[in-house]
Amino acid sequence: MNKTDISTLIRQKKSLLCVGLDTDPGKIPHHLFSEEDPVFAFNKAIIDATKDYAVAYKINTAFYEAQGLKGWVSLGKTLDYIPKDLFTIADAKRGDIGNTSEQYARAFFLTYPFDSVTVAPYMGADSVQPFLGFPGKWVIVLGLTSNAGSADFQLHPSGAELLYEKVLRTVAGWGTPDNLMFVVGATRKEQLQHIRSLLPEHFFLIPGVGAQGGDVATVCKYALNKDAGVLINVSRAIIYAGSDTDFALRAEEVAKKYQQEMAEYL
Amino acid sequence: MNKTDISTLIRQKKSLLCVGLDTDPGKIPHHLFSEEDPVFAFNKAIIDATKDYAVAYKINTAFYEAQGLKGWVSLGKTLDYIPKDLFTIADAKRGDIGNTSEQYARAFFLTYPFDSVTVAPYMGADSVQPFLGFPGKWVIVLGLTSNAGSADFQLHPSGAELLYEKVLRTVAGWGTPDNLMFVVGATRKEQLQHIRSLLPEHFFLIPGVGAQGGDVATVCKYALNKDAGVLINVSRAIIYAGSDTDFALRAEEVAKKYQQEMAEYL
Repeated sequence: MNKTDISTLIRQKKSLLCVGLDTDPGKIPHHLFSEEDPVFAFNKAIIDATKDYAVAYKINTAFYEAQGLKGWVSLGKTLDYIPKDLFTIADAKRGDIGNTSEQYARAFFLTYPFDSVTVAPYMGADSVQPFLGFPGKWVIVLGLTSNAGSADFQLHPSGAELLYEKVLRTVAGWGTPDNLMFVVGATRKEQLQHIRSLLPEHFFLIPGVGAQGGDVATVCKYALNKDAGVLINVSRAIIYAGSDTDFALRAEEVAKKYQQEMAEYL
Repeated sequence: MNKTDISTLIRQKKSLLCVGLDTDPGKIPHHLFSEEDPVFAFNKAIIDATKDYAVAYKINTAFYEAQGLKGWVSLGKTLDYIPKDLFTIADAKRGDIGNTSEQYARAFFLTYPFDSVTVAPYMGADSVQPFLGFPGKWVIVLGLTSNAGSADFQLHPSGAELLYEKVLRTVAGWGTPDNLMFVVGATRKEQLQHIRSLLPEHFFLIPGVGAQGGDVATVCKYALNKDAGVLINVSRAIIYAGSDTDFALRAEEVAKKYQQEMAEYL
């Protein structure tokens, strides 16, 4: 999926919504445990309910890894079930020395054929570059994350700039706006404006909306670019909107509300 | 396994050797492909051949993830086969927001019961802390890595120090020398001396020896502390020492050579 494909999809669906499938077996409705694969049954219902409003799905691999083999089975079935015209993200936050990052790229681009994978930047160029050699695939590198811990290192000075600014600027030089996106967990106006001015061309994956407190209006006003350039992830506020047999309906309502709000800015 | 257990094991076996099981199906001897699980057959033979000389095994999860479900089966069987008195490391380099790091901790401490897991520091305290709440388990945080890319961010100024120094100092405050180790890919005398002076009490997992060019003598001379305080990982130089039916014998010879060299300093 190239940048034009993603932009076209966003314009057609009037949506920037990425639904985060952080599916925790401890939080899904009890009636699903009569199914052979409760996690997949949950994801399938969520995908059916939200696919008209979403342009992307993000699978948070941790929740599947914690379940061992059966988690990976659920992950594979879920990925396969996502409509092929939507963008898929393995939110795996991998990164290691070159020969090892190559293996992670195989895992998330070939074995499990996601469109993109999230990558941590701490180990530098040779930890990111092996992911960039797959035509049509995207690497989404952590820039500024949405959690409290982003203050520990990302917001500290690195020479004349802050570490996250150095990361954005440096990593941008390793790829292009056609194979590289950034995680930008900014939900404040000034930060979004600033980061968009640093990287006018790149797509940003923006977490932190919903359960983490960010809002769509601020993101749209200050981060959209000519290609749209933004995917807004919402996980818990959608997938756990309901906790009973009507969970998919509740998820649909919330996803639709987000999409309608996004449509105003597109 | 607590710090005293690890130190005692090191003194008993006169070894600091961690054998890295970065098992690539593309690099293991052809005759193993008649086995039902060639990767496990390879690891089993390597473990049998090296267990007298090693105190730890490190499973590089990327190589298993790239194989999908069958890779996770091989990983599980390998972990189970490692003698229970040796220290086990999931080299997974995970790290995410709190609720997600909790899931990674479950994956590598409970679902796959490793003694320790490697964690990337970029996302800060709440990405590391969920791993620290498991009694008897260890978190091994990336400090200074052994790859060329360590120069991109880790060796850049962060205020009055370098980023890796800030990471070592800050992360050390989140745990204790009894539940926290650091990846220290230093192979030069000055760096090892400096890092040991910053963290006199902690264990270091030291990669970069063997295929990456580091040597045992320098590490032992400048990084050992009163508890030994060092695990030296060797992966490719041991596991791929031979490429034919005698691969395990070749691996044993190399592991023994490393152990004998380490014994001189213990």
